[in-house]
Amino acid sequence: MNIKEFEKKLELYRNTLNKLILNDISKRKPKSLYDPLVYFLKSSGKRLRGILVLLVSNLVNGKQNDLPYNQAIAVELLHNFTLIHDDIMDNSNKRHNKLTLHVKYDLSTAILAGDTLLAIAYEFLDRDLKINQQKIYEEFTKALSIVCEGQALDKEFETRKKVTIPNYFEMISKKTGALIKTACRIGALLNTNNNSINIDLIENLGNFGLYTGIAFQIQDDLLDVIGNQKLFGKTKGTDLIEGKKTYLLLNALKKAKGKDLIELQKIIENKGIKPSSVKKYIDIYYRTGVIEQAKEEINKHFENAKKILSTLSKNYNVNNLELFLNYVINRRY
Amino acid sequence: MNIKEFEKKLELYRNTLNKLILNDISKRKPKSLYDPLVYFLKSSGKRLRGILVLLVSNLVNGKQNDLPYNQAIAVELLHNFTLIHDDIMDNSNKRHNKLTLHVKYDLSTAILAGDTLLAIAYEFLDRDLKINQQKIYEEFTKALSIVCEGQALDKEFETRKKVTIPNYFEMISKKTGALIKTACRIGALLNTNNNSINIDLIENLGNFGLYTGIAFQIQDDLLDVIGNQKLFGKTKGTDLIEGKKTYLLLNALKKAKGKDLIELQKIIENKGIKPSSVKKYIDIYYRTGVIEQAKEEINKHFENAKKILSTLSKNYNVNNLELFLNYVINRRY
Repeated sequence: MNIKEFEKKLELYRNTLNKLILNDISKRKPKSLYDPLVYFLKSSGKRLRGILVLLVSNLVNGKQNDLPYNQAIAVELLHNFTLIHDDIMDNSNKRHNKLTLHVKYDLSTAILAGDTLLAIAYEFLDRDLKINQQKIYEEFTKALSIVCEGQALDKEFETRKKVTIPNYFEMISKKTGALIKTACRIGALLNTNNNSINIDLIENLGNFGLYTGIAFQIQDDLLDVIGNQKLFGKTKGTDLIEGKKTYLLLNALKKAKGKDLIELQKIIENKGIKPSSVKKYIDIYYRTGVIEQAKEEINKHFENAKKILSTLSKNYNVNNLELFLNYVINRRY
Repeated sequence: MNIKEFEKKLELYRNTLNKLILNDISKRKPKSLYDPLVYFLKSSGKRLRGILVLLVSNLVNGKQNDLPYNQAIAVELLHNFTLIHDDIMDNSNKRHNKLTLHVKYDLSTAILAGDTLLAIAYEFLDRDLKINQQKIYEEFTKALSIVCEGQALDKEFETRKKVTIPNYFEMISKKTGALIKTACRIGALLNTNNNSINIDLIENLGNFGLYTGIAFQIQDDLLDVIGNQKLFGKTKGTDLIEGKKTYLLLNALKKAKGKDLIELQKIIENKGIKPSSVKKYIDIYYRTGVIEQAKEEINKHFENAKKILSTLSKNYNVNNLELFLNYVINRRY
C-alpha cells in the first residue's frame, strides 16, 4: 500500500468512527447534555488514537475486517473528554477553528459534557467485549489516571520556576504518551487469547505507542512555532504567548547565553509574551539550535518506534503501522 | 441489633472506608493533584452509598466478614466525584462546613480532582473483583451516565420556567436515585453466582435503593427548610435563596392561591430570594400544606422500600437494611 492509499484508509476509518460516535450520541436525551457533545465531536479531530486501536488489532489478528470499532471509539472519546476539560483549564477559546465548549456554551455545560463523554467512553469499551475484559478495563482506567496526572503536572509547571527536561518528559509521557500506548495495548489485548497472552507482543506494541506519543507531543511543541497555523487551528506561537514550558523553551533556556537568555527568562517571569514578540523568540529558538534539536529528538523517538516494528515484522505484517508512523512524521499540523 | 448498636456499626464501616480511601490517595503523586482530594475526602460525609454496598453484600451472602470494601469505595468515590463537579456548577462555597475545592484551590484543580477521583473509583471497582465483572462494570458506568443526565436536568430546570412534578421525579431518580440503586445492585451482584444470577433478588434490591434514594432526596429538600442547619452544614433555605425547583416549591406553586402564589412566582421570576425572606416562604410552605405533603411523599417511598424488605425477609436476614432505613428516615441533617 502506498501513502496515498493509506491516507484513504485513514479517512475511511475516521469517517466510520465519526459516524458511529455521532449516531450514538445524537440520539440521546436530554438534549441540553448531548447537543454540546455533538457540536464538539463534529470537528476535524484526526481520531488517531481510535485508528491506532484498529490498526494494531489488524496487525495482531491479521484480519482486515472484524474491527473493534467500539473499543477504538472508547479510546477516542477518553481523549476527547480530556480535551474538553483541558480547554477549560487552559482557558482556550478555540480548538480546530471552532469555539471550545465552555466558550460556546458555559462552564457547567462543558464540565458536564466532559464527564458524560467519559461515561460514554466506558460504555463503548464494554460493547461486544468478549476477551480479556478485566485487563482491558484495567488498561483503560490506568490510562485515565495517568492522563490526569500528566495534566496536573502540566498545570503545576505553569507556576513552577524550575522545570527540568526529565520533568518535561515525565509530563508528556503521561499526558500524551500514556493514552497512545494504551490504544496500542488494547488493540493487542482484543486479539490475544486469554490463556496465552503474549506479553512481549503487548509490551512491544505499547512501547511503540509510547514512543510515537512522545514524538507526537514534541512535534506539537515544534509545530506551534513552525507549523501551518491555518491547518493547525491555532495561532502561531501560542505556547510562547502563554509561557508554556515546552521542549523548545526548556532547552533554549539551557543553551542560550547573554541577551538571548535574558529575553527567554522574561517568558518565565512574565508567564508569557505579547503576540507581537513571537517572531523574535522564534529567531532565538533557531539561533540556539533548539529547532534542530527538537527535530532530532522527535526523530529519535520515531526511530525507536520503527525499531519495534522491525522486530515485530518477523511475525506480523507491520505495513500499516509503518505507514501510520510515516503519516504522523510528515504531518504539518 | 438495636439502633444504637447499628449506629456503631455504621460508624465502624464509615471509619474503615475513610481509612482505606485516605491510605490509598494520600500516597499518590503528584501532590498538586492528590492533596486537594485528601482535603475533600477528609470530610464528615456519611458514606451511606458505600455502606449500602457492604450491607447488601452482607444480606445476600449471609457473612459478616469478607466485605467488598473496594467496590463500596468505588461507589462512594463516584458519588464524591459528582459532588466536586456539582459544587463548581452550582457555585457552592461550602460543603459539610468546609470550603469547596474550587474555592479552597481553584477551578482547574477542582475539575481535575473530580476527574481523577472518577479514575480512582474505577480502579477500586476493579480490585479483587472476581465475579460478574462485566455486569458490575456495566452497572457502574450506567450509573455514571444517568447521574450526569440527572445533573443536566437539574441545571436545565434552573432556567426552565415550567417544571412539572414528573419532571422533578425524573431528575431526582437520575441524580440521586440511580447511584443508590446501583450501590444495592452491585452489593448483590458481588455475591450472586455468575451461573445462577437471581434476577429477582437484584431487581428487588435495586428498587429498594431507588425508593430509598428518592425519599432521601425529597428529605433533602425538606431538611433544607426544617433541618438542623448546623448539622446539615448549609444555611437554612439555601434552595429558596437559589430559586431551586424543589419538591416543596413545585407543589407549593400548584397549591397556593392569591397572594401566596404571587409571592412564590417571584422565586421563579427572580431566580431566587433574599436570605431575609426565607422565613416568609417557609411560612407559605406550611400554609399551603407542602411540608406535610413532602413528609407523606417521603414516607410513601420509605414504605415501598420497607415492603421490598418484607418480601425479601422470607429468604434473607433484612435486619440491617431495616435499621439502615430507620437511620435514614430519622436523619435530621
